[in-house]
Amino acid sequence: MIDELVRQIQKKNAPVVVGLDPMLSYIPEQIVERAIEEKGETLEAAAEAVWQFNKGIVDATYDLIPAVKPQVAMYEQFGVPGMEVFARTVEYCKEKGLVVIGDVKRGDIGSTSAAYAAAHIGSVKIGNSVLRGFKEDFVTVNPYLGTDGVKPFAEVCQKDGKGIFVLVKTSNPSSGEFQDRLIDGKPLYEHVADKVNEWGKDCMGACGYSAIGAVVGATYPEQGKILRALMPKVFILVPGYGAQGAKGRDLAHFFNPDGLGALVNSSRGIIAAYKQEQYAKFGGEHYAEASRQAVLDMIEDLRG
Amino acid sequence: MIDELVRQIQKKNAPVVVGLDPMLSYIPEQIVERAIEEKGETLEAAAEAVWQFNKGIVDATYDLIPAVKPQVAMYEQFGVPGMEVFARTVEYCKEKGLVVIGDVKRGDIGSTSAAYAAAHIGSVKIGNSVLRGFKEDFVTVNPYLGTDGVKPFAEVCQKDGKGIFVLVKTSNPSSGEFQDRLIDGKPLYEHVADKVNEWGKDCMGACGYSAIGAVVGATYPEQGKILRALMPKVFILVPGYGAQGAKGRDLAHFFNPDGLGALVNSSRGIIAAYKQEQYAKFGGEHYAEASRQAVLDMIEDLRG
Repeated sequence: MIDELVRQIQKKNAPVVVGLDPMLSYIPEQIVERAIEEKGETLEAAAEAVWQFNKGIVDATYDLIPAVKPQVAMYEQFGVPGMEVFARTVEYCKEKGLVVIGDVKRGDIGSTSAAYAAAHIGSVKIGNSVLRGFKEDFVTVNPYLGTDGVKPFAEVCQKDGKGIFVLVKTSNPSSGEFQDRLIDGKPLYEHVADKVNEWGKDCMGACGYSAIGAVVGATYPEQGKILRALMPKVFILVPGYGAQGAKGRDLAHFFNPDGLGALVNSSRGIIAAYKQEQYAKFGGEHYAEASRQAVLDMIEDLRG
Repeated sequence: MIDELVRQIQKKNAPVVVGLDPMLSYIPEQIVERAIEEKGETLEAAAEAVWQFNKGIVDATYDLIPAVKPQVAMYEQFGVPGMEVFARTVEYCKEKGLVVIGDVKRGDIGSTSAAYAAAHIGSVKIGNSVLRGFKEDFVTVNPYLGTDGVKPFAEVCQKDGKGIFVLVKTSNPSSGEFQDRLIDGKPLYEHVADKVNEWGKDCMGACGYSAIGAVVGATYPEQGKILRALMPKVFILVPGYGAQGAKGRDLAHFFNPDGLGALVNSSRGIIAAYKQEQYAKFGGEHYAEASRQAVLDMIEDLRG
């Protein structure tokens, strides 16, 4: 799947992933109102609004981008109907030829991590049938529990040709509280990076990158430079562009000399573009076109 | 909710939580076969088997125990039908008067952590209606992202009277890879413990314990002793009893002198008791009675 991701990035000439993180407050009022008219003030209505909103954005942008990254928390908050729309969104994006990165930040131990991996990138066996729950291509994984937590995902990556991105240095202001602390003279995130290299050794794609990627926030460009050098064969998923403050020029060092090795995410900056002054002219009715314009502008910014 | 947990522990005189982690291989064949007969080889059949299995165990043990801890990964692997049975299990356990700890190990940043908190222990607002997704009383939370990741949960704890358990020192063999590394002369897990104390300051219950608890594995009794002393007002959720190797005598130091402060989890050891030699006489048909006997034996072991 890392090969497919690289192929898509090269085809679209855009190392960009759109974060499908549909907070209810991002969704134009008329979509929410129509869903409530139809289904009442229910979790089903919220889920339906999310679905309509997502579909509009995907339809307006899929030809420009290699991948999407739905944030499962935004679906999970609407309970079972939300998870149904998460599954539907994943399937729809795959029908549109997009690589789907489930931003699930799961991580547990042994058989429990194996169950999470089965849920999102693998399969379960019921009787003689092999079935899949949520069908993403990649997921994000939390490393706090160590190798026991990550290996079950890596095994599914090998078996089913999928991939993961392990949290190394996250984009948020307090990420340094633990991640930056020095251990034997180097920060924890570098120790995690060493392990990401190790976990990826048996999962190399034909493209020269491993199926075990890393998450490094765009908001920490200096650390990005160091981590890029430390993990030459690791693809880096880079959140924090746009709404979280980073710009294209901050991101040059996240890429390898081959122009590959990083995938930059923008969520709010794309899906709620119509709420920004720059794209306000589109209005809520044309939110999807605003998203398309924001994607075009982001690609141009990154190419620069 | 921490007060309710303490009340239930005192009422049942058992600091015990049963982990509802229903792997398909734990479920007696006749239950799985019946579900497949009814619904074919589908995710729905697996979910139905899980539900029937859970209901049997809960009915056979709820009068003995204060709490259950469903592990969401085991439901998530069966996709949307699995999540529906997770929700149904949570509701059923609450109807039976049990405190429900969702073992979800979620953790993200800002609005995303807030969405996870809303999903599991809080609520969402749709129109003028306040609705709840999964309705647990507590969840487990991963601290790797720092205060940004945990605060949104703590805020919901305060607002809605719920609680969390933050991963401090996990029970698995490789938990030391990062958690044990020394930072300024003390292991990372002690730094996390310091933060757990801090996060809990504004969430104190009438019982003298904070709504922000900690997870410390039974498999590390020495660290448990240190962490107990470091976090005197923090309730400790203790996995790793039984199947993972720890016994009652290893656990004395997880408790405070008041006899409170720890809640010991057993999953496989209880729910798949009928598969152990000791309880094999019950057989698959009487798996629930085997679980009841295993709970009684565990309570006796812990009282000793």
